[in-house]
Amino acid sequence: MGRIFKVNTDYSKQNIEFNIINNGTITSVPGFYAAACHCGIKGSGKPDMCIIYTPEDSICSGVFTINKFLAAPVIVTKEQLKKTRNIKAITVNSGIANACTGELGYKNARKTIEIASQYLGVEKKNIIVSSTGVIGRQLPMDKIEEGIKQCACKLSGTDGHSGIDGHDAAEAILTTDLVAKEIAVSIKVEGGSDIIIGGIAKGSGMIEPNMATMLSFITTNVKIPENLLDEILSDEVGRSFNSITVDGCQSTNDMAIVIANSKSNVEIKNKKDKYYKKFKNALSLVMKDLAKKIVLDGEGATKLIDIKVINAKSKVDAKKLALAVADSNLFKTAMFGQDLNWGRINGAMGSVDCDFDPEKVDIYIGDVLIVKNGMGVKFDRIYTEKLMKEKEVKFTVDLNYGKKEFSVLTTDLSFDYIKINASYHT
Amino acid sequence: MGRIFKVNTDYSKQNIEFNIINNGTITSVPGFYAAACHCGIKGSGKPDMCIIYTPEDSICSGVFTINKFLAAPVIVTKEQLKKTRNIKAITVNSGIANACTGELGYKNARKTIEIASQYLGVEKKNIIVSSTGVIGRQLPMDKIEEGIKQCACKLSGTDGHSGIDGHDAAEAILTTDLVAKEIAVSIKVEGGSDIIIGGIAKGSGMIEPNMATMLSFITTNVKIPENLLDEILSDEVGRSFNSITVDGCQSTNDMAIVIANSKSNVEIKNKKDKYYKKFKNALSLVMKDLAKKIVLDGEGATKLIDIKVINAKSKVDAKKLALAVADSNLFKTAMFGQDLNWGRINGAMGSVDCDFDPEKVDIYIGDVLIVKNGMGVKFDRIYTEKLMKEKEVKFTVDLNYGKKEFSVLTTDLSFDYIKINASYHT
Repeated sequence: MGRIFKVNTDYSKQNIEFNIINNGTITSVPGFYAAACHCGIKGSGKPDMCIIYTPEDSICSGVFTINKFLAAPVIVTKEQLKKTRNIKAITVNSGIANACTGELGYKNARKTIEIASQYLGVEKKNIIVSSTGVIGRQLPMDKIEEGIKQCACKLSGTDGHSGIDGHDAAEAILTTDLVAKEIAVSIKVEGGSDIIIGGIAKGSGMIEPNMATMLSFITTNVKIPENLLDEILSDEVGRSFNSITVDGCQSTNDMAIVIANSKSNVEIKNKKDKYYKKFKNALSLVMKDLAKKIVLDGEGATKLIDIKVINAKSKVDAKKLALAVADSNLFKTAMFGQDLNWGRINGAMGSVDCDFDPEKVDIYIGDVLIVKNGMGVKFDRIYTEKLMKEKEVKFTVDLNYGKKEFSVLTTDLSFDYIKINASYHT
Repeated sequence: MGRIFKVNTDYSKQNIEFNIINNGTITSVPGFYAAACHCGIKGSGKPDMCIIYTPEDSICSGVFTINKFLAAPVIVTKEQLKKTRNIKAITVNSGIANACTGELGYKNARKTIEIASQYLGVEKKNIIVSSTGVIGRQLPMDKIEEGIKQCACKLSGTDGHSGIDGHDAAEAILTTDLVAKEIAVSIKVEGGSDIIIGGIAKGSGMIEPNMATMLSFITTNVKIPENLLDEILSDEVGRSFNSITVDGCQSTNDMAIVIANSKSNVEIKNKKDKYYKKFKNALSLVMKDLAKKIVLDGEGATKLIDIKVINAKSKVDAKKLALAVADSNLFKTAMFGQDLNWGRINGAMGSVDCDFDPEKVDIYIGDVLIVKNGMGVKFDRIYTEKLMKEKEVKFTVDLNYGKKEFSVLTTDLSFDYIKINASYHT
């Protein structure tokens, strides 16, 4: 389990309109506070409870799993957001997912909000709840209460300077992830305080599907109407968290949440607004960065594989084809073996029910053409072998059949994936 | 690679109307002959070419891959069957798939038929062709000719007693399969010669998707109209070869072929015919048996897993759900680890886009209820641990949501799968 990645996210080639904050996290955003503790859900003694909090009136948007076995916290949080988008606190526990837990599970998620309301002095309607961990077990409510109490105590003791305890929260939401996933960026505002966006996440494709949850919590200090924030979030989720796959499954507990607390005095009213595009781009970078970190921390991953399908008839087709390759065990094992087996790309795409012409398909690794019109061509094998040995490998599939495209990030399939997943016992 | 299964196909509980022929194969059927040789396509020196032949006028039905990258032999064989169903010879080479080979590949498949016609003295229109092996390479036509010549020579030297050389053909169609897959059954005919059905197959989920081809050739001696044979074949393919999954992909070269040579003097004119049902059941058994043998020979497989989804709204839904579980890496690694992790079944099914109610789902291992209304229940863990250690494990998912069902056979996902697939180099 000693696999730690250094994530080299190279933004130098992009037109940067924002700065990446050193050691940034959710509490790099003014007015956001966080606290975490170990309340006893995890046997390991690691942090298993946290609260993210802002005293300000806020706007919250959320995107949730489409898995039919919706976990209780997902059901409850969706209900909460229907009542009001003014969310000031999120409680997150790790270790138990509170999924497939029926009526009692639902009541416990509601009870968690009640407890948080009591200790934080925040109205129930302004609190949402999230869980990740083992499926099919009930939350130990005494421990949950103890955890919330501890977190609330730490929050009340905060000196008003945020920027520290976000790291603790980033640790507390992990299950079998190896590294915490955090980032914060700032956008310069003329004659005002900067717009800041901070985010933390935990990964999918974990030791168990029981823990295969993807969670992301993002904070920002802009003022923005809820419909505009919804639109941006939904758009960017498609380009980030919904464009990654470790084992091709949405879990019972997945959620991505953004809370905007208006603290910067910058208001983004509509799409024509001066800071709209900059904010959207910065949020996009935050979410893509977290998504990439999730993939790199995927179980047993030794490589990050980028599969881009271009010139498809529709975006849906491009996505289907990219995912078919990204989820193909045969392709993924070839990547682990560092073998440039393009037949596995053809094979996976050919099985997909969508419209393209196999005789028009060109495939590139990096910028090297390896398949032309569906057939292999001669290429510099010494150079491509070098590309296959890189930690990040990029394939482009040109369908020559339309104008739409979609990219998917995935990992290889290694011995460690099997080891981690087969040796875990419920 | 020393994994050899003894296939225990227990038919004793079925209402047997037919006998399984000891050491039976395609040439157990009167009037069918086969020959195989090594012509030099495979570097290993193993058999790589065979011909299956009957001098009789016949009726042939075929079912083919739906992969968009159709291999040349599939295109050519489909063309041939449009001209006439009277097929007397099939040539099969292994080692090179003749897929993604463009115009030259097509010409070579046609040329193979020409060569076979010349050496067998059979008209071109009565010959079909099949290949399996590496994608993207052209057939070495000099070796193909040498192979056909050798096989034709052996066929002409046959003493008129079939029943031996089918085994050679069963070997020659293999790529990375570990064992040959063969069976033959007989149906007693009152006052006449028995109906015999023989079959051979090679497996999917092989070392490379380049070789992930599923081929099956079935011979029989009934007289049957082509539309009736088509219907039975298509029906039974759905219940056998299309109900198995090792890595969830149809290859470029898959085909299942049945040839009926009328030698038994039994004619099955329509569905009301005395022998219709018996024939269909026997063909069903042959195909299911071959399908099971393919799964058991799946890469790195240590277990045969049967996933039956019952009481679904539609058969399509039942199939989607069963396949989602069967293709879930998380489920398959849990099976390898012999851990009864039902959360992985829920998780995989919940991701499927189809109509069911998660709160009505019951799950059984063997006959033990482990999930009721989507939630875990108490069960005898000592007994279920025993069930998990068996070579064959059966799950039943009762959706309580309709009347349709579908069963899928799959394998676990083991270290050897990764080893085999990652260590292969193109």
